[in-house]
Amino acid sequence: MTQGFFIVFEGGDGSGKSTQLGMLADRLRAFGRDVVRTREPGGTLMGRQIRQLLLHSEEVGPKAEALLFAADRAHHVDSLVRPALARGAVVLSDRFMDSSIAYQGQGRDLGVEEVRELSLWATTRLLPDITVILDLDPNIAAKRLGDHLDRMESAGITFHTQVRQRFLDMAAEGGDSYLVVDASKPAEVIAQEIWQHVWPRVNNGTKDDLDG
Amino acid sequence: MTQGFFIVFEGGDGSGKSTQLGMLADRLRAFGRDVVRTREPGGTLMGRQIRQLLLHSEEVGPKAEALLFAADRAHHVDSLVRPALARGAVVLSDRFMDSSIAYQGQGRDLGVEEVRELSLWATTRLLPDITVILDLDPNIAAKRLGDHLDRMESAGITFHTQVRQRFLDMAAEGGDSYLVVDASKPAEVIAQEIWQHVWPRVNNGTKDDLDG
Repeated sequence: MTQGFFIVFEGGDGSGKSTQLGMLADRLRAFGRDVVRTREPGGTLMGRQIRQLLLHSEEVGPKAEALLFAADRAHHVDSLVRPALARGAVVLSDRFMDSSIAYQGQGRDLGVEEVRELSLWATTRLLPDITVILDLDPNIAAKRLGDHLDRMESAGITFHTQVRQRFLDMAAEGGDSYLVVDASKPAEVIAQEIWQHVWPRVNNGTKDDLDG
Repeated sequence: MTQGFFIVFEGGDGSGKSTQLGMLADRLRAFGRDVVRTREPGGTLMGRQIRQLLLHSEEVGPKAEALLFAADRAHHVDSLVRPALARGAVVLSDRFMDSSIAYQGQGRDLGVEEVRELSLWATTRLLPDITVILDLDPNIAAKRLGDHLDRMESAGITFHTQVRQRFLDMAAEGGDSYLVVDASKPAEVIAQEIWQHVWPRVNNGTKDDLDG
């Protein structure tokens, strides 16, 4: 039986998620895998429209925002992720549920459990096979993004430090479905760490493709 | 203390909701009330964008649709309904939570309780003071809307009959916060029935405005 594999990259902006996602995609394709690259929000036409709406509409409160992200996720999973997994593809997503939990369930009016339950309902409990956390000090991330440190007020650094900690907490609770990598290392070193963790599991998880 | 009053009109398309809403608004204004007319979906800029998105984007599944309606409702309540109630206005809305329950929690993949809980979460449990159900046989509604009956296949009538029954069930369970009117009567007769039910309660519910 064909069986796909779902890998999510999480971490703050500037942590190198899209670079690592691209390197892993190339390597999986070199091994003959059907790879689907996607992202949240914005992996579908409706997701891009929701993203525009959040950027260009009136200011929205935390619940409306969480519901819009959940709508995007429900549609993304239904129309793109599940069909790709069903045909045996490896799906690589730049952000997924944990980003909602880390960003929205923290430092705002919503609780972590509320955001988690909303996401689980939206996706009918689809969870990644592996979540790769690219862990980086927000001060380093800010430098990489070309921000001047004096532009990032202390509240900004505090918020991003809490988000970082939330990702690490989820990894600690999530056991071997999580891989935390030190995103301050050179990209090639990180890519190799990810490959060594991911490939045996992808190869095993989809071995029926090869053997059967 | 100023205290607003929230009245929702529910019923199928063609049952005369907007006509009755307009007649009640005029009469309340004639009695000096601050009246806010609104609707779902589409009572806010973001709501209209969500509505466009549902009409012109890819086809979306029932969960994504329910989440988009809930996002609209959360924003509508936060940005328009609650502020108007807080300043003492009478808010009249063409559809609210019960429409989501009747249409989405019925005949699709979602359960009534799931849709209700989602709505209650979105609005932080804001409920109408009075819900007016304009009850009409779907066959009569279809004629009013100018549809030929042969265009409405039996599945359509069955669906709308179930929706009608769901509204009646909610009214039966909801006690005196619901008013069911026979929407086949002349508009002036219906308006008078609604007025006799609504006015004493609006006048009582906001009497501090007048007395104090």
